[in-house]
Amino acid sequence: MSARGRFITFEGSEGCGKSTQIARLKARLEGEGREVLLTREPGGTAAGEKVRDLLQHAPEGEGLTAEAELLLFAASRAQLVREVIEPALARGAWVLADRFLDSTTVYQGVGRGLGAEAVATVNALAVGGCLPDRTVLLDIDVAESRRRIAGRDGGVADRMEREPDAFFERVRRGYLELAAGEPGRFLVIDASATPDVVEAQIASKVLGVEG
Amino acid sequence: MSARGRFITFEGSEGCGKSTQIARLKARLEGEGREVLLTREPGGTAAGEKVRDLLQHAPEGEGLTAEAELLLFAASRAQLVREVIEPALARGAWVLADRFLDSTTVYQGVGRGLGAEAVATVNALAVGGCLPDRTVLLDIDVAESRRRIAGRDGGVADRMEREPDAFFERVRRGYLELAAGEPGRFLVIDASATPDVVEAQIASKVLGVEG
Repeated sequence: MSARGRFITFEGSEGCGKSTQIARLKARLEGEGREVLLTREPGGTAAGEKVRDLLQHAPEGEGLTAEAELLLFAASRAQLVREVIEPALARGAWVLADRFLDSTTVYQGVGRGLGAEAVATVNALAVGGCLPDRTVLLDIDVAESRRRIAGRDGGVADRMEREPDAFFERVRRGYLELAAGEPGRFLVIDASATPDVVEAQIASKVLGVEG
Repeated sequence: MSARGRFITFEGSEGCGKSTQIARLKARLEGEGREVLLTREPGGTAAGEKVRDLLQHAPEGEGLTAEAELLLFAASRAQLVREVIEPALARGAWVLADRFLDSTTVYQGVGRGLGAEAVATVNALAVGGCLPDRTVLLDIDVAESRRRIAGRDGGVADRMEREPDAFFERVRRGYLELAAGEPGRFLVIDASATPDVVEAQIASKVLGVEG
Protein backbone atom coordinates (compact mmCIF):
# COMPACT_ATOMS: atom_id res chain seq x y z
CA MET A 1 0.00 0.00 0.00
CA SER A 2 1.45 3.35 -1.06
CA ALA A 3 1.75 6.41 1.14
CA ARG A 4 -0.94 9.02 0.79
CA GLY A 5 -0.22 11.57 -1.94
CA ARG A 6 -0.06 15.33 -1.60
CA PHE A 7 -2.79 17.82 -2.43
CA ILE A 8 -1.53 21.19 -3.69
CA THR A 9 -3.92 23.94 -4.76
CA PHE A 10 -3.09 27.03 -6.83
CA GLU A 11 -4.92 30.29 -6.30
CA GLY A 12 -4.71 33.85 -7.53
CA SER A 13 -6.30 36.41 -9.83
CA GLU A 14 -6.63 35.95 -13.58
CA GLY A 15 -3.27 36.35 -15.27
CA CYS A 16 -1.24 35.35 -12.22
CA GLY A 17 0.36 32.42 -14.04
CA LYS A 18 -1.37 29.45 -12.38
CA SER A 19 -1.59 27.36 -15.56
CA THR A 20 2.09 27.84 -16.38
CA GLN A 21 3.24 26.97 -12.89
CA ILE A 22 0.97 23.96 -12.58
CA ALA A 23 2.33 22.58 -15.85
CA ARG A 24 5.90 23.12 -14.68
CA LEU A 25 5.37 21.49 -11.29
CA LYS A 26 3.63 18.58 -12.98
CA ALA A 27 6.57 18.04 -15.34
CA ARG A 28 9.00 18.21 -12.44
CA LEU A 29 7.03 15.67 -10.39
CA GLU A 30 6.55 13.31 -13.31
CA GLY A 31 10.29 13.57 -13.92
CA GLU A 32 10.68 12.06 -10.47
CA GLY A 33 8.38 9.22 -11.50
CA ARG A 34 5.36 10.38 -9.54
CA GLU A 35 1.73 10.11 -10.64
CA VAL A 36 0.24 13.59 -11.01
CA LEU A 37 -3.42 14.45 -11.40
CA LEU A 38 -4.52 17.92 -12.51
CA THR A 39 -7.97 19.21 -11.62
CA ARG A 40 -9.87 22.31 -12.53
CA GLU A 41 -13.23 23.52 -11.36
CA PRO A 42 -16.03 23.39 -12.05
CA GLY A 43 -15.73 20.06 -13.84
CA GLY A 44 -13.58 16.96 -13.66
CA THR A 45 -16.46 14.47 -13.36
CA ALA A 46 -19.38 13.76 -15.66
CA ALA A 47 -21.73 15.61 -13.31
CA GLY A 48 -19.20 18.40 -12.78
CA GLU A 49 -18.78 18.97 -16.51
CA LYS A 50 -22.55 19.40 -16.81
CA VAL A 51 -22.39 21.96 -14.01
CA ARG A 52 -19.53 23.69 -15.82
CA ASP A 53 -21.61 23.88 -18.96
CA LEU A 54 -24.52 25.29 -16.97
CA LEU A 55 -22.35 27.96 -15.33
CA GLN A 56 -20.75 29.01 -18.59
CA HIS A 57 -23.82 28.94 -20.78
CA ALA A 58 -26.62 30.28 -18.65
CA PRO A 59 -29.28 31.37 -21.15
CA GLU A 60 -29.15 35.01 -22.21
CA GLY A 61 -31.32 37.18 -20.05
CA GLU A 62 -31.41 34.62 -17.26
CA GLY A 63 -28.46 35.49 -15.11
CA LEU A 64 -27.67 32.96 -12.44
CA THR A 65 -28.12 34.35 -8.96
CA ALA A 66 -25.02 34.63 -6.79
CA GLU A 67 -26.46 31.97 -4.48
CA ALA A 68 -27.13 29.48 -7.29
CA GLU A 69 -23.62 30.07 -8.63
CA LEU A 70 -22.06 29.34 -5.24
CA LEU A 71 -24.13 26.18 -4.78
CA LEU A 72 -23.34 24.88 -8.27
CA PHE A 73 -19.61 25.35 -7.77
CA ALA A 74 -19.91 23.53 -4.44
CA ALA A 75 -21.88 20.65 -5.98
CA SER A 76 -19.23 20.16 -8.64
CA ARG A 77 -16.54 20.21 -5.96
CA ALA A 78 -18.35 17.74 -3.70
CA GLN A 79 -18.46 15.25 -6.55
CA LEU A 80 -14.85 15.89 -7.62
CA VAL A 81 -13.47 15.41 -4.11
CA ARG A 82 -15.16 12.07 -3.52
CA GLU A 83 -14.96 10.63 -7.02
CA VAL A 84 -11.50 11.81 -8.12
CA ILE A 85 -9.32 13.62 -5.59
CA GLU A 86 -9.69 11.33 -2.58
CA PRO A 87 -9.10 8.12 -4.56
CA ALA A 88 -6.02 9.68 -6.23
CA LEU A 89 -4.53 10.76 -2.91
CA ALA A 90 -5.28 7.34 -1.46
CA ARG A 91 -3.23 5.62 -4.19
CA GLY A 92 -0.31 8.01 -3.60
CA ALA A 93 -0.75 10.50 -6.45
CA TRP A 94 -0.02 14.21 -6.24
CA VAL A 95 -3.11 16.25 -7.00
CA LEU A 96 -2.54 19.77 -8.38
CA ALA A 97 -5.72 21.81 -8.39
CA ASP A 98 -6.25 24.95 -10.48
CA ARG A 99 -8.45 26.72 -7.90
CA PHE A 100 -10.25 25.03 -5.00
CA LEU A 101 -12.20 26.19 -1.99
CA ASP A 102 -10.31 29.45 -1.47
CA SER A 103 -11.54 30.68 -4.85
CA THR A 104 -15.09 30.24 -3.61
CA THR A 105 -14.35 32.04 -0.38
CA VAL A 106 -12.83 34.95 -2.23
CA TYR A 107 -14.90 35.26 -5.41
CA GLN A 108 -18.33 34.33 -4.03
CA GLY A 109 -17.82 35.45 -0.45
CA VAL A 110 -15.76 38.59 -0.75
CA GLY A 111 -16.32 39.46 -4.41
CA ARG A 112 -20.09 38.86 -4.59
CA GLY A 113 -20.81 39.79 -1.01
CA LEU A 114 -22.38 36.52 0.16
CA GLY A 115 -21.86 36.03 3.88
CA ALA A 116 -18.53 34.59 4.97
CA GLU A 117 -20.19 32.15 7.35
CA ALA A 118 -22.60 30.75 4.76
CA VAL A 119 -19.78 30.34 2.26
CA ALA A 120 -17.61 28.62 4.86
CA THR A 121 -20.39 26.17 5.71
CA VAL A 122 -21.05 25.37 2.06
CA ASN A 123 -17.32 24.91 1.46
CA ALA A 124 -16.98 22.59 4.44
CA LEU A 125 -19.91 20.47 3.29
CA ALA A 126 -18.49 20.28 -0.24
CA VAL A 127 -14.95 19.21 0.65
CA GLY A 128 -15.64 17.11 3.72
CA GLY A 129 -12.27 16.65 5.36
CA CYS A 130 -10.33 16.95 2.10
CA LEU A 131 -8.24 20.09 2.62
CA PRO A 132 -5.11 21.05 0.66
CA ASP A 133 -1.73 20.21 2.17
CA ARG A 134 -0.34 23.41 0.68
CA THR A 135 -1.90 26.29 -1.24
CA VAL A 136 0.25 28.33 -3.61
CA LEU A 137 -1.10 31.89 -3.82
CA LEU A 138 0.34 33.66 -6.84
CA ASP A 139 -0.05 37.28 -5.85
CA ILE A 140 -0.23 39.94 -8.52
CA ASP A 141 -1.52 43.51 -8.57
CA VAL A 142 -4.59 44.48 -10.56
CA ALA A 143 -2.77 46.57 -13.16
CA GLU A 144 -0.36 43.74 -13.97
CA SER A 145 -3.22 41.25 -14.04
CA ARG A 146 -5.11 43.39 -16.56
CA ARG A 147 -1.98 43.90 -18.63
CA ARG A 148 -1.34 40.16 -18.89
CA ILE A 149 -4.81 39.11 -19.88
CA ALA A 150 -5.50 42.02 -22.24
CA GLY A 151 -3.87 40.08 -25.05
CA ARG A 152 -5.87 36.91 -24.49
CA ASP A 153 -8.80 35.97 -26.64
CA GLY A 154 -12.19 35.16 -25.38
CA GLY A 155 -14.09 34.76 -22.18
CA VAL A 156 -11.65 35.66 -19.45
CA ALA A 157 -10.55 38.90 -21.07
CA ASP A 158 -14.17 39.83 -21.81
CA ARG A 159 -15.35 39.12 -18.29
CA MET A 160 -12.44 40.97 -16.77
CA GLU A 161 -13.10 44.03 -18.91
CA ARG A 162 -16.54 44.33 -17.38
CA GLU A 163 -15.48 44.22 -13.72
CA PRO A 164 -14.19 47.40 -12.06
CA ASP A 165 -10.77 47.55 -10.43
CA ALA A 166 -12.48 47.59 -7.03
CA PHE A 167 -13.72 44.02 -7.57
CA PHE A 168 -10.21 42.72 -8.23
CA GLU A 169 -8.80 44.73 -5.35
CA ARG A 170 -11.32 43.02 -3.06
CA VAL A 171 -10.38 39.62 -4.47
CA ARG A 172 -6.65 40.26 -4.01
CA ARG A 173 -7.13 41.56 -0.48
CA GLY A 174 -9.39 38.60 0.31
CA TYR A 175 -6.72 36.13 -0.77
CA LEU A 176 -4.01 37.88 1.25
CA GLU A 177 -6.21 37.88 4.35
CA LEU A 178 -6.91 34.15 3.99
CA ALA A 179 -3.18 33.51 3.62
CA ALA A 180 -2.39 35.58 6.69
CA GLY A 181 -4.89 33.52 8.68
CA GLU A 182 -3.38 30.16 7.64
CA PRO A 183 0.35 30.73 7.23
CA GLY A 184 1.09 27.02 7.57
CA ARG A 185 -0.98 26.13 4.52
CA PHE A 186 -0.42 29.14 2.24
CA LEU A 187 2.71 29.99 0.29
CA VAL A 188 2.37 33.56 -0.94
CA ILE A 189 4.57 34.09 -3.98
CA ASP A 190 5.20 37.35 -5.83
CA ALA A 191 3.89 36.44 -9.27
CA SER A 192 5.23 39.56 -10.94
CA ALA A 193 8.62 37.83 -11.13
CA THR A 194 9.60 35.81 -14.21
CA PRO A 195 8.11 32.30 -14.61
CA ASP A 196 11.53 30.78 -13.91
CA VAL A 197 11.88 32.63 -10.63
CA VAL A 198 8.35 31.75 -9.58
CA GLU A 199 8.91 28.10 -10.50
CA ALA A 200 12.08 27.94 -8.44
CA GLN A 201 10.30 29.39 -5.43
CA ILE A 202 7.46 26.87 -5.70
CA ALA A 203 9.88 23.96 -6.09
CA SER A 204 11.88 25.14 -3.12
CA LYS A 205 8.94 25.65 -0.83
CA VAL A 206 6.60 22.86 -1.92
CA LEU A 207 9.17 20.19 -2.71
CA GLY A 208 12.11 21.34 -0.64
CA VAL A 209 14.21 21.51 -3.82
CA GLU A 210 17.03 24.08 -4.00
CA GLY A 211 16.67 26.43 -7.01
CA MET B 1 -50.08 47.97 -6.47
CA SER B 2 -51.50 44.62 -5.40
CA ALA B 3 -51.12 43.05 -1.98
CA ARG B 4 -48.44 40.44 -1.62
CA GLY B 5 -49.60 36.93 -2.56
CA ARG B 6 -49.46 33.80 -0.42
CA PHE B 7 -46.86 31.08 -0.52
CA ILE B 8 -48.17 27.60 0.33
CA THR B 9 -45.94 24.53 0.22
CA PHE B 10 -47.05 20.90 0.16
CA GLU B 11 -44.96 18.18 1.76
CA GLY B 12 -45.24 14.48 2.49
CA SER B 13 -44.08 11.05 1.41
CA GLU B 14 -44.64 9.62 -2.06
CA GLY B 15 -48.26 8.65 -2.53
CA CYS B 16 -49.61 11.13 0.02
CA GLY B 17 -51.73 12.92 -2.57
CA LYS B 18 -49.85 16.21 -3.00
CA SER B 19 -50.47 16.48 -6.74
CA THR B 20 -54.19 15.88 -6.38
CA GLN B 21 -54.58 18.40 -3.59
CA ILE B 22 -52.46 21.05 -5.30
CA ALA B 23 -54.62 20.74 -8.42
CA ARG B 24 -57.79 21.06 -6.35
CA LEU B 25 -56.59 24.10 -4.40
CA LYS B 26 -55.44 25.71 -7.63
CA ALA B 27 -58.87 25.21 -9.22
CA ARG B 28 -60.56 26.63 -6.14
CA LEU B 29 -58.32 29.72 -6.07
CA GLU B 30 -58.67 30.33 -9.80
CA GLY B 31 -62.42 30.04 -9.36
CA GLU B 32 -62.12 33.05 -7.08
CA GLY B 33 -60.26 34.89 -9.83
CA ARG B 34 -56.80 34.63 -8.29
CA GLU B 35 -53.56 34.12 -10.16
CA VAL B 36 -51.99 30.80 -9.12
CA LEU B 37 -48.49 29.64 -9.87
CA LEU B 38 -47.45 26.00 -9.39
CA THR B 39 -43.82 25.09 -8.79
CA ARG B 40 -42.00 21.83 -8.50
CA GLU B 41 -38.40 21.12 -7.68
CA PRO B 42 -35.85 20.74 -8.96
CA GLY B 43 -36.71 22.80 -12.02
CA GLY B 44 -38.95 25.73 -12.87
CA THR B 45 -36.24 27.87 -14.47
CA ALA B 46 -33.96 27.20 -17.41
CA ALA B 47 -31.03 26.58 -15.06
CA GLY B 48 -33.20 24.55 -12.70
CA GLU B 49 -34.41 22.28 -15.49
CA LYS B 50 -30.80 21.53 -16.38
CA VAL B 51 -30.17 20.66 -12.73
CA ARG B 52 -33.26 18.44 -12.79
CA ASP B 53 -31.93 16.63 -15.81
CA LEU B 54 -28.57 16.18 -14.10
CA LEU B 55 -30.16 14.78 -10.94
CA GLN B 56 -32.39 12.40 -12.84
CA HIS B 57 -29.88 11.23 -15.40
CA ALA B 58 -26.61 10.91 -13.56
CA PRO B 59 -24.52 8.58 -15.71
CA GLU B 60 -24.68 4.91 -14.79
CA GLY B 61 -21.94 3.93 -12.42
CA GLU B 62 -21.36 7.50 -11.34
CA GLY B 63 -23.69 7.95 -8.44
CA LEU B 64 -24.05 11.50 -7.25
CA THR B 65 -22.74 11.94 -3.73
CA ALA B 66 -25.25 12.93 -1.08
CA GLU B 67 -23.49 16.29 -0.73
CA ALA B 68 -23.62 17.05 -4.47
CA GLU B 69 -27.29 16.09 -4.52
CA LEU B 70 -28.10 18.47 -1.66
CA LEU B 71 -26.17 21.32 -3.26
CA LEU B 72 -27.79 20.81 -6.67
CA PHE B 73 -31.28 20.87 -5.17
CA ALA B 74 -30.34 24.03 -3.31
CA ALA B 75 -28.94 25.70 -6.44
CA SER B 76 -32.14 25.00 -8.34
CA ARG B 77 -34.15 26.42 -5.45
CA ALA B 78 -32.02 29.55 -5.14
CA GLN B 79 -32.70 30.35 -8.78
CA LEU B 80 -36.42 29.49 -8.55
CA VAL B 81 -36.99 31.70 -5.51
CA ARG B 82 -35.40 34.79 -7.01
CA GLU B 83 -36.48 34.38 -10.61
CA VAL B 84 -40.02 33.01 -10.20
CA ILE B 85 -41.47 32.79 -6.69
CA GLU B 86 -40.56 36.23 -5.32
CA PRO B 87 -41.76 38.11 -8.44
CA ALA B 88 -45.05 36.13 -8.41
CA LEU B 89 -45.68 36.89 -4.73
CA ALA B 90 -44.81 40.54 -5.33
CA ARG B 91 -47.53 40.84 -7.99
CA GLY B 92 -50.10 39.23 -5.70
CA ALA B 93 -50.17 35.65 -7.00
CA TRP B 94 -50.61 32.54 -4.87
CA VAL B 95 -47.68 30.20 -5.22
CA LEU B 96 -48.33 26.51 -4.55
CA ALA B 97 -45.13 24.50 -4.28
CA ASP B 98 -44.92 20.74 -4.65
CA ARG B 99 -42.09 20.30 -2.12
CA PHE B 100 -39.78 23.06 -0.88
CA LEU B 101 -37.13 23.39 1.78
CA ASP B 102 -38.68 20.91 4.23
CA SER B 103 -38.17 18.12 1.68
CA THR B 104 -34.46 18.90 1.71
CA THR B 105 -34.35 18.91 5.49
CA VAL B 106 -36.09 15.58 5.66
CA TYR B 107 -34.77 13.65 2.66
CA GLN B 108 -31.19 14.90 2.61
CA GLY B 109 -30.79 15.71 6.29
CA VAL B 110 -32.69 12.95 8.02
CA GLY B 111 -32.92 10.40 5.21
CA ARG B 112 -29.34 10.59 3.93
CA GLY B 113 -27.77 11.47 7.25
CA LEU B 114 -26.16 14.78 6.29
CA GLY B 115 -25.84 17.05 9.32
CA ALA B 116 -28.92 19.02 10.28
CA GLU B 117 -26.91 22.21 10.76
CA ALA B 118 -25.23 22.03 7.36
CA VAL B 119 -28.57 21.34 5.68
CA ALA B 120 -30.19 24.24 7.53
CA THR B 121 -27.43 26.63 6.43
CA VAL B 122 -27.66 25.52 2.82
CA ASN B 123 -31.44 25.85 2.94
CA ALA B 124 -31.24 29.35 4.40
CA LEU B 125 -28.77 30.46 1.74
CA ALA B 126 -30.96 29.01 -1.00
CA VAL B 127 -34.27 30.58 0.03
CA GLY B 128 -33.01 33.86 1.44
CA GLY B 129 -35.95 35.27 3.36
CA CYS B 130 -38.56 33.55 1.20
CA LEU B 131 -40.29 31.19 3.62
CA PRO B 132 -43.72 29.59 3.13
CA ASP B 133 -46.71 31.27 4.76
CA ARG B 134 -48.21 27.82 5.36
CA THR B 135 -46.97 24.30 4.78
CA VAL B 136 -49.49 21.51 4.26
CA LEU B 137 -48.03 18.21 5.49
CA LEU B 138 -50.01 15.30 4.11
CA ASP B 139 -49.21 12.59 6.61
CA ILE B 140 -49.48 8.98 5.59
CA ASP B 141 -48.05 5.76 6.98
CA VAL B 142 -45.47 3.75 5.08
CA ALA B 143 -47.71 0.79 4.29
CA GLU B 144 -50.40 3.03 2.80
CA SER B 145 -47.77 4.99 0.88
CA ARG B 146 -46.38 1.79 -0.64
CA ARG B 147 -49.85 0.54 -1.46
CA ARG B 148 -50.75 3.73 -3.33
CA ILE B 149 -47.65 3.94 -5.46
CA ALA B 150 -47.36 0.22 -6.20
CA GLY B 151 -49.70 0.69 -9.14
CA ARG B 152 -47.81 3.59 -10.66
CA ASP B 153 -45.48 3.20 -13.59
CA GLY B 154 -41.95 4.30 -13.67
CA GLY B 155 -39.39 6.05 -11.58
CA VAL B 156 -41.10 6.77 -8.29
CA ALA B 157 -42.34 3.22 -7.83
CA ASP B 158 -38.95 1.82 -8.83
CA ARG B 159 -37.04 4.08 -6.46
CA MET B 160 -39.41 3.37 -3.64
CA GLU B 161 -39.09 -0.36 -4.13
CA ARG B 162 -35.39 -0.11 -3.46
CA GLU B 163 -35.60 1.81 -0.17
CA PRO B 164 -36.31 -0.10 3.03
CA ASP B 165 -39.25 0.76 5.28
CA ALA B 166 -36.81 2.24 7.78
CA PHE B 167 -35.93 5.02 5.32
CA PHE B 168 -39.56 6.05 4.93
CA GLU B 169 -40.16 5.78 8.65
CA ARG B 170 -37.29 8.23 9.19
CA VAL B 171 -38.72 10.56 6.58
CA ARG B 172 -42.18 10.47 8.11
CA ARG B 173 -40.87 11.02 11.62
CA GLY B 174 -38.63 13.83 10.34
CA TYR B 175 -41.62 15.63 8.84
CA LEU B 176 -43.69 15.25 12.00
CA GLU B 177 -40.85 16.61 14.12
CA LEU B 178 -40.47 19.64 11.86
CA ALA B 179 -44.20 20.25 12.08
CA ALA B 180 -44.17 19.99 15.86
CA GLY B 181 -41.40 22.60 15.98
CA GLU B 182 -43.30 25.12 13.83
CA PRO B 183 -46.99 24.66 14.60
CA GLY B 184 -47.83 28.12 13.26
CA ARG B 185 -46.57 27.29 9.78
CA PHE B 186 -47.46 23.60 9.43
CA LEU B 187 -50.89 22.10 8.90
CA VAL B 188 -50.66 18.36 9.51
CA ILE B 189 -53.44 16.57 7.69
CA ASP B 190 -54.31 12.89 7.83
CA ALA B 191 -53.85 11.93 4.20
CA SER B 192 -55.37 8.49 4.61
CA ALA B 193 -58.80 10.13 4.37
CA THR B 194 -60.56 10.47 1.01
CA PRO B 195 -59.40 13.23 -1.36
CA ASP B 196 -62.66 15.13 -0.74
CA VAL B 197 -62.15 15.11 3.01
CA VAL B 198 -58.52 16.16 2.68
CA GLU B 199 -59.49 18.93 0.26
CA ALA B 200 -62.12 20.27 2.65
CA GLN B 201 -59.61 20.36 5.49
CA ILE B 202 -57.07 22.22 3.41
CA ALA B 203 -59.67 24.73 2.21
CA SER B 204 -60.86 25.26 5.75
CA LYS B 205 -57.44 25.75 7.26
CA VAL B 206 -55.59 27.51 4.47
CA LEU B 207 -58.42 29.61 3.08
CA GLY B 208 -60.74 29.80 6.05
CA VAL B 209 -63.51 28.24 3.93
CA GLU B 210 -66.14 26.10 5.64
CA GLY B 211 -66.32 22.64 4.04
